[in-house]
Amino acid sequence: MKLSRIEHVGIAMPSDEEAVRLGKLLFGREPDTVEEVPSQRVRTHIYKIGESKIEFLVPTSDDSTVAKFINDRGQGLHHLAFAVDSVEEAIVEMKSRGAQMIDEVPREGVENTRIAFAHPKSTGRVLVEFVEGG
Amino acid sequence: MKLSRIEHVGIAMPSDEEAVRLGKLLFGREPDTVEEVPSQRVRTHIYKIGESKIEFLVPTSDDSTVAKFINDRGQGLHHLAFAVDSVEEAIVEMKSRGAQMIDEVPREGVENTRIAFAHPKSTGRVLVEFVEGG
Repeated sequence: MKLSRIEHVGIAMPSDEEAVRLGKLLFGREPDTVEEVPSQRVRTHIYKIGESKIEFLVPTSDDSTVAKFINDRGQGLHHLAFAVDSVEEAIVEMKSRGAQMIDEVPREGVENTRIAFAHPKSTGRVLVEFVEGG
Repeated sequence: MKLSRIEHVGIAMPSDEEAVRLGKLLFGREPDTVEEVPSQRVRTHIYKIGESKIEFLVPTSDDSTVAKFINDRGQGLHHLAFAVDSVEEAIVEMKSRGAQMIDEVPREGVENTRIAFAHPKSTGRVLVEFVEGG
């Protein structure tokens, strides 16, 4: 498993307005893309920065895990995603190193990616995502 | 102000042991460098990932801001740093956009960098750092 780059950093935001405001403050512009992810009940505002992306995550429903995160811990840095050649290989290798995976099989991410999350219990309370094809 | 890449992601860790454990779990190796930052009362474990770095921040004193962060919010994602050509320019431009800066003049960072932090009150509760020369 080679983590070739930071694929993106996910930031939980309470509203589209707050995401757009912060995007203009930091990047001076509108997002490159805005995408709905119905399975996760979030809307993502994506800004490309070098070889990585910043993804603002806005919950579209109160029972979204991002809405729960904002309720529990407040808006802000949410997760860290690394690019890998193979998500299957990443899952196998993380498990062989003793990590607990949220996703034991890859699932579909935004923009035709395949993704898996490790459980923050085993990754030092950091929600880590592996992304193939980003 | 052009944010050319994610310079690093800072992750607060309670101990060197926990930083090393997580480094081995995620990256399968020891850190590229370990550096003391006396002014911030932290030790940094740095892993290069593509054009970016992951920095584990271990407090070296109970009155370190990182120790306080861990007490208040728990270990985990701490701050997000962007590479800029000029920190002075970044400070001026952030202020002109209405942001509040923790550092109104650049200060010295690790590895001969010059840095400035924006106040998370104005950046959506995300601690944002600008780094020149990283």
